[in-house]
Amino acid sequence: MKSFRKEIWVDIEKRREFINITSKVQDCLEESGIKEGLLLCNAMHITASVFINDDESGLHHDFEDWLEGLAPEKPYSRYRHNGYEDNGDAHLKRTVMGREVVVAVTDGKLDFGPWEQIFYGEFDGKRRKRILVKIIGE
Amino acid sequence: MKSFRKEIWVDIEKRREFINITSKVQDCLEESGIKEGLLLCNAMHITASVFINDDESGLHHDFEDWLEGLAPEKPYSRYRHNGYEDNGDAHLKRTVMGREVVVAVTDGKLDFGPWEQIFYGEFDGKRRKRILVKIIGE
Amino acid sequence: MKSFRKEIWVDIEKRREFINITSKVQDCLEESGIKEGLLLCNAMHITASVFINDDESGLHHDFEDWLEGLAPEKPYSRYRHNGYEDNGDAHLKRTVMGREVVVAVTDGKLDFGPWEQIFYGEFDGKRRKRILVKIIGE
Repeated sequence: MKSFRKEIWVDIEKRREFINITSKVQDCLEESGIKEGLLLCNAMHITASVFINDDESGLHHDFEDWLEGLAPEKPYSRYRHNGYEDNGDAHLKRTVMGREVVVAVTDGKLDFGPWEQIFYGEFDGKRRKRILVKIIGE
Repeated sequence: MKSFRKEIWVDIEKRREFINITSKVQDCLEESGIKEGLLLCNAMHITASVFINDDESGLHHDFEDWLEGLAPEKPYSRYRHNGYEDNGDAHLKRTVMGREVVVAVTDGKLDFGPWEQIFYGEFDGKRRKRILVKIIGE
Repeated sequence: MKSFRKEIWVDIEKRREFINITSKVQDCLEESGIKEGLLLCNAMHITASVFINDDESGLHHDFEDWLEGLAPEKPYSRYRHNGYEDNGDAHLKRTVMGREVVVAVTDGKLDFGPWEQIFYGEFDGKRRKRILVKIIGE
């Protein structure tokens, strides 16, 4: 069994941002040399998500509006977590979107349906953040 | 290490449907010959989910009502994604229910608690859809 | 390839409770002797979650309030699942929080960002419950 680990670092300029990281994850897979196995990709931050969906800007706007409806950022006082922080909403938004994805590796490729793309979703950004890729297989 | 891959195809007649795929996933596991490992089962479509819960029709009605409350199908104009499409709600519903499950394989069986069953949940159906099963182990 | 399986049992006194199980999962990893691989940790009950987030009591209160807003416990009659049961809400709350986490194992440790902690979240407790840990790797 082979295993491979790499961190992907991203600069997040805004509080909330979605970034397509599919090609970076593919680069990791290629570098690993693993042909058959499982790939885990997860946010290393607890106000952020890694998820799979469509790379379509309208949909990303819908995600933003919908998450803001489910767990509004303001007023900050609505969350008990916001004693010293103001990111209570970000923890909840990340929960809806999920922390991680597990992807099949087949024939050295991400074994995806036609529209599947991997995104990093950050809900408390404005700094550098990192994503873990771990692959096991042969 | 052994690995196994198979697609499960299902005909989805309605826009939204939940299908118990547990026995089909078990068939994959048996065919794989893998006794100890991890099994990934994921929707290959981005308007659909694979999830684990109870096989109880009342609960499935509750899921339908609840998801329709969280992300209503209509009016279609409420989603920016719905320029050429009408499935914005389906992307959000799938997000709540999740894309994939990872199941332990122990002694050649799905290592489940007493009520765990695997479902495919489709939110933009009326056509053939497919589900990926990938198993690694020994 | 090595594999390891263990159940963690917890006594849940209240209907809803969050328990930090990180150290118990770390104990499993140590006992397994696995240094590189993937670790699956999942609820074996369908009204419960395993999730990763911050160990901060204000946030856990926020989760409680937020989930109760998204899927209220009462009136019990609001859920069709509640014919013989009263836990319809618990199935929905678990869906939001997720059934499982998959964690990278690197150098014999849970490969976590600085604030990641693993929790068991129960939404229909008042009895003993169990959590599955399955690890594969080398």
